[in-house]
Amino acid sequence: MRDSLSRERIEFLKKDFSQGFTAYCGLEAISITPGRVESRILIGPEHRQQDGFIHAGVTTTLADHTAGYAAFTLAGEMNRILTVEFKINFLRPAFGDELICRARVIKPGAKLMICESDVFDQREDGEILAARLMATMAVVPSEKLENGKQYSG
Amino acid sequence: MRDSLSRERIEFLKKDFSQGFTAYCGLEAISITPGRVESRILIGPEHRQQDGFIHAGVTTTLADHTAGYAAFTLAGEMNRILTVEFKINFLRPAFGDELICRARVIKPGAKLMICESDVFDQREDGEILAARLMATMAVVPSEKLENGKQYSG
Amino acid sequence: MRDSLSRERIEFLKKDFSQGFTAYCGLEAISITPGRVESRILIGPEHRQQDGFIHAGVTTTLADHTAGYAAFTLAGEMNRILTVEFKINFLRPAFGDELICRARVIKPGAKLMICESDVFDQREDGEILAARLMATMAVVPSEKLENGKQYSG
Amino acid sequence: MRDSLSRERIEFLKKDFSQGFTAYCGLEAISITPGRVESRILIGPEHRQQDGFIHAGVTTTLADHTAGYAAFTLAGEMNRILTVEFKINFLRPAFGDELICRARVIKPGAKLMICESDVFDQREDGEILAARLMATMAVVPSEKLENGKQYSG
Repeated sequence: MRDSLSRERIEFLKKDFSQGFTAYCGLEAISITPGRVESRILIGPEHRQQDGFIHAGVTTTLADHTAGYAAFTLAGEMNRILTVEFKINFLRPAFGDELICRARVIKPGAKLMICESDVFDQREDGEILAARLMATMAVVPSEKLENGKQYSG
Repeated sequence: MRDSLSRERIEFLKKDFSQGFTAYCGLEAISITPGRVESRILIGPEHRQQDGFIHAGVTTTLADHTAGYAAFTLAGEMNRILTVEFKINFLRPAFGDELICRARVIKPGAKLMICESDVFDQREDGEILAARLMATMAVVPSEKLENGKQYSG
Repeated sequence: MRDSLSRERIEFLKKDFSQGFTAYCGLEAISITPGRVESRILIGPEHRQQDGFIHAGVTTTLADHTAGYAAFTLAGEMNRILTVEFKINFLRPAFGDELICRARVIKPGAKLMICESDVFDQREDGEILAARLMATMAVVPSEKLENGKQYSG
Repeated sequence: MRDSLSRERIEFLKKDFSQGFTAYCGLEAISITPGRVESRILIGPEHRQQDGFIHAGVTTTLADHTAGYAAFTLAGEMNRILTVEFKINFLRPAFGDELICRARVIKPGAKLMICESDVFDQREDGEILAARLMATMAVVPSEKLENGKQYSG
């Protein structure tokens, strides 16, 4: 496992974190250290579901993506990360104006990394654990992913 | 378990399906029958991740939401559905221009429903199973959810 | 959530912990406090699989059962616990002569409890985290379970 | 994926299936074809839990082990299978005198296989789906597992 990340690598990862779907949803990386990433999303009406809660899809996207980047901090720079699977438990419905996610790698590996994310609902009276995710991430050499179509896993 | 749904109920569910986050992402219900919902999403650049694949968060939102509505078809009209937990396996990276999801209730219940969703990537050469989700859904009386904040588990 | 357990309740739970399949396998409760249970199993040849590792079924039985009893400490005495679902990640193959499990309730509830278990492989050079389980447990009134057959939940 | 298995390979797999923990518990393979295994266990008092139901650990051991051997049918003979993770939903408490498991590989792969198992409770009035498991299995070269201790992930 890496002990440190260069400033350039951290800047790359922060920028890389928010693009495509995650930029569209408004996810941002807050801090990145080896094996750990913290992120957040400010909640608007476009993130809620039919009953006014934050949609499980928003919570899950934040938890999965942040876990993936926690794995990414420990993978060589020639590698990329794909989610093999995850499980998420929704402990309490989330309804605040912001979600904070804290993800960590609990078992690093050359080919597979096991990661965990906690998502905290930011409420007027403090933050509360809203969801916990446990994921298996695959470390895949970048060249296998060229043009987003050639992966045959 | 219900044997049939009124035309009004089906219209309500179809409209209810796409709002807030799911409308923002472009999810649509295609067909709704007791215990089964089929849905889709047309993929644009805002649904992709850093390597050009459809983001796992998109696939998951579609799979979870469609499973929830499959449960919703079997719950009384005074009830709503909240996701307790799910697990999703990503069988193959998805990169097509459309995802189709087929969800079904595999175990109905008065308080909990167990549901499964398959997400198919629509490619030029046909559709392929991209992900499978297994979820536990809670059936919650509507009045417990009023104003999106009063639910206490 | 309970703040304390009577000595009688702790003795009941310890004895209740090991019976039927768990007695057959050799599981024992070590310590029981509100929301937390620690347990262990001494490993013999009957617990191993085809390659000499401790069978995933042993690790899982220990993790699930201990999580269930962690939930049981917080449920009223008229209730029993049934596993709704769990997910377990095997972080490292286990091969030692003993497994220790530490389980805790991460979200108590009147009907559902979310629990987590860590299973540690006891090796000559110290213990190592071998598996982590996250489970949803149902709290079921005892009278619904009479004679082990009438539950229709 | 293999199209067929030799009679010798099937006999090897059937025998290999029941040893150590699975022999101790009484698991038996019934039929083995490429990508599919059916198995069973006859239930005695040593398989039950505190309320008379079949212990979740028995159901899970059967489901996980059978899924692993379904993967094993598609792996080269120089390889072995280790469970990376699984999730299991218990749809109905099981209480019959026999469990039957049907497992299949839903996504083969050179390094990872995704498998599913259904466990059916055999009751006087017919069989009923008691549990469904979805697992990620790792294909590991045999030499990495020599003496059951040298595997390092």
